[in-house]
Amino acid sequence: MGVLVLDLRKHFDNWSNINLNPVWAMEEGEDISKGQYGMMEMIQSKSKPDRCIVDLKQLTPDLGDQKVWVRARLQTSRSKGKQCFFVLRQSKWTVQALVYVGDKVSKQMVKFVAGVTKESIVDVEAYVRTVSQKVTSCSQQEVELHCEQVWVVSPALPRLPLLVEDAARPDNPDDELATVKQDTRLDNRVIDLRTTTNQAIFRLEAGVCRFFRDALTKEGFVEIHTPKIISAASEGGANVFTVSYFKSNAYLAQSPQLYKQMAICADFDKVFSVGAVFRAEDSNTHRHLTEFVGLDMEMAFKYHYHEVIDVIGNLFVSIFKGLRDNFQEEIETINKQFPAEPFKFLEPSLRLEYVEAVQMLRDNGVEMDEEEDLSTPNEKFLGRLVKAKYDTDFYILDKFPLAVRPFYTMPDPNNKKWSNSYDMFMRGEEILSGAQRVHDSNFLIERAKHHGIDLEKIKAYIDSFKYGAPPHAGGGIGMERVCMLYLGLDNIRKTSMFPRDPKRLTP
Amino acid sequence: MGVLVLDLRKHFDNWSNINLNPVWAMEEGEDISKGQYGMMEMIQSKSKPDRCIVDLKQLTPDLGDQKVWVRARLQTSRSKGKQCFFVLRQSKWTVQALVYVGDKVSKQMVKFVAGVTKESIVDVEAYVRTVSQKVTSCSQQEVELHCEQVWVVSPALPRLPLLVEDAARPDNPDDELATVKQDTRLDNRVIDLRTTTNQAIFRLEAGVCRFFRDALTKEGFVEIHTPKIISAASEGGANVFTVSYFKSNAYLAQSPQLYKQMAICADFDKVFSVGAVFRAEDSNTHRHLTEFVGLDMEMAFKYHYHEVIDVIGNLFVSIFKGLRDNFQEEIETINKQFPAEPFKFLEPSLRLEYVEAVQMLRDNGVEMDEEEDLSTPNEKFLGRLVKAKYDTDFYILDKFPLAVRPFYTMPDPNNKKWSNSYDMFMRGEEILSGAQRVHDSNFLIERAKHHGIDLEKIKAYIDSFKYGAPPHAGGGIGMERVCMLYLGLDNIRKTSMFPRDPKRLTP
Repeated sequence: MGVLVLDLRKHFDNWSNINLNPVWAMEEGEDISKGQYGMMEMIQSKSKPDRCIVDLKQLTPDLGDQKVWVRARLQTSRSKGKQCFFVLRQSKWTVQALVYVGDKVSKQMVKFVAGVTKESIVDVEAYVRTVSQKVTSCSQQEVELHCEQVWVVSPALPRLPLLVEDAARPDNPDDELATVKQDTRLDNRVIDLRTTTNQAIFRLEAGVCRFFRDALTKEGFVEIHTPKIISAASEGGANVFTVSYFKSNAYLAQSPQLYKQMAICADFDKVFSVGAVFRAEDSNTHRHLTEFVGLDMEMAFKYHYHEVIDVIGNLFVSIFKGLRDNFQEEIETINKQFPAEPFKFLEPSLRLEYVEAVQMLRDNGVEMDEEEDLSTPNEKFLGRLVKAKYDTDFYILDKFPLAVRPFYTMPDPNNKKWSNSYDMFMRGEEILSGAQRVHDSNFLIERAKHHGIDLEKIKAYIDSFKYGAPPHAGGGIGMERVCMLYLGLDNIRKTSMFPRDPKRLTP
Repeated sequence: MGVLVLDLRKHFDNWSNINLNPVWAMEEGEDISKGQYGMMEMIQSKSKPDRCIVDLKQLTPDLGDQKVWVRARLQTSRSKGKQCFFVLRQSKWTVQALVYVGDKVSKQMVKFVAGVTKESIVDVEAYVRTVSQKVTSCSQQEVELHCEQVWVVSPALPRLPLLVEDAARPDNPDDELATVKQDTRLDNRVIDLRTTTNQAIFRLEAGVCRFFRDALTKEGFVEIHTPKIISAASEGGANVFTVSYFKSNAYLAQSPQLYKQMAICADFDKVFSVGAVFRAEDSNTHRHLTEFVGLDMEMAFKYHYHEVIDVIGNLFVSIFKGLRDNFQEEIETINKQFPAEPFKFLEPSLRLEYVEAVQMLRDNGVEMDEEEDLSTPNEKFLGRLVKAKYDTDFYILDKFPLAVRPFYTMPDPNNKKWSNSYDMFMRGEEILSGAQRVHDSNFLIERAKHHGIDLEKIKAYIDSFKYGAPPHAGGGIGMERVCMLYLGLDNIRKTSMFPRDPKRLTP
């Protein structure tokens, strides 16, 4: 791999020519550090050295005066006379390191280290030294690394399309130039994701999924996987992506709705799924994606769909508690870049009826009909009213007007204006939509006809209810929305690792 | 909902006319059970009765002589004089129940119960009675239910397209008529899934996912979600589904490969994902699906990709142990319908080099070149040889010929014929393919050119390695294959709840 190593050096030499540095002007003489620094050969698994590499988070005064190996990114560096200070970063941890000309370190070595490009990955061998004054700019404040070896494992280009320090800066409405545009971030997502904020966001998001699954598994739910490629548009024909499927066409599922219901008819009793869902909506808003992760659940109940509402309400409480109790550090990190009020919730969750909500809005000057759907501004306004009155950022709105819900929604038995359906909200935005479903095939046919749905296309679905079906209800949650709203972020692209919208398909 | 109730009765009356039964001929007189049986009004969440419904699995002698409510499917029934015996089923549990003419039960009621269609869901109120002789045909062998109320919650059609008892029968090669064809099962999946075997298979499959995630989470891996809609075919252009994406075209990801690597370049260090992957292969075999669940992982390592092989090897051991220790009952249930040898594994996992495997095959009469890929028959034969020699159904094959692996595979530094790549096998079939990836952008470009790949299409991918990238390796597992092979099943459609292949898009 001789050629390769040469290529790497070329990168690096280019860079050295750009950045002039006082230390370079010194007379160099014999290099006493030869073999203690340089470009490491590409790691190709040639050997298994018996060397223990320590994580940055382990660097505390406990390791004081010990010699350790560390692998991390070089975040920034600055030389000063015969020494060079640099900051090493590993996910959210940072530590100060330095090389200074002395018994073991040559001028040439200091010059080399000063020339290492930002974001390069380096291996250093160093003594851990406690510091007299805290290094407030780093996560490891009580120690620094005095390096004797510095090797570049993987060099970064000298000119980066986005600097991590810029990506990590809070948005500043008074200084647009200082704010990195969202498209710049997303175009260079691999760099953008390295900020401590993004490291925290996506670790917390993994927590949302874990708490969702763990809470439901504990309640006896079974995880299922439903097909994404389907033969007919599952919920009406609009907003669905078409796929070429061998010699014919198929569609991408807008939700696992029909399949999770079939699983209930197949005696799985309580099921959940975590998976991609697709919406061919040409909406370019802060909260729409064309592909997102659906956290779906469905469950048979005995007599009343409120049995299911209670399970879902408790599920959210489990998720909120899990985040609060396990991700406090991440939440604080994220709040530094994107300030937000702490998320408040009640236990048990607050449940309001739709008519009450309409009344609250009317009492506050909104003109609307009680059978009208909530507009986005009214949804948000309602969220503020509920927060003011009940001090919660999460609540359940029950008994939506039948007319605004899908065909498979069970009507209210007591008043045909309403339905046994519900939405759930976080900070005034909808994050779950659910209902008792019609489990009787004849009534389902009647409802489908009423909605003008082509019965032939949903035959397999309707047939599922002809072989005995228990009453059941469920709901679907948008994972990215839960994260966005829990953290009080302003855009769903901040909680989707590689977001998809009508205008973005890369990276 | 009066109309509806009438509709339900119609279903039921149709049925009554077909099945003649001796009890119906009796003189009926006044109905003393009026109000104790019948068609229940559709459960529309009208009320929340204060009634505790007991699960079938709770029906043991502990509840002897207590009166309970139970909701379950009526699996079979047979009348005999003044009584009617029936079996109730709930997932994998069954219990014997009966009604007999007496103080509380009328002839009319017995007649009604005898007429309830198979697979209907019923509510019964009954005394739990211990039996003198075990009911060997049911899971609850020590008790039976003496019913005083029987209500049909949801009736099944009198003629079912598939009977659960037929679907539950072991395949019989000597009697093709007695064996339910796979397409019949899949066409009527909602019924097919109700067999105790399928109840067990998909509960165990949920376990596979859970053990996969739990083992990796414990090792510090972060769960990520990668886009399924991508702008360019990720691994060459073949076998990829095309999606209409607004005014242009996009593709369905064949794996999360490029995205999980980008997550590594973005400092997530160790990541996994569970999600749908798509292959537009026109393969109609026992082990190919066009859509399946990928269990993927990727991890940065320090010096040698064997660090990653060790993690994956231990991961499989965790999954196998989890299944063995938590799903023994399910495994036994499945083996009754589909007999298989218990799955054997070693700890730590066995790792062989490709050249050793080729030598084993050659020693056993196979003619093949050492740089040739393994054919499917040779793979299976090798599995048998390895089992005979090492007594394990799981092993790792390391150092595949470079020529048969994708462009991003790291070549072996010591011999350019080989590569730092590996496959893992269960019962002689491949279930994981993985490798150290090329993490240097210049070398990656060189390798992509060598493979004739259009660099423009993978620009974002290649660029990811220009900003400093750690050495890393990983692999992708087919979830359905793991279940199929762990259980020794003969077809992957048995472990996909709603399978997709070139000829099947429904249900």
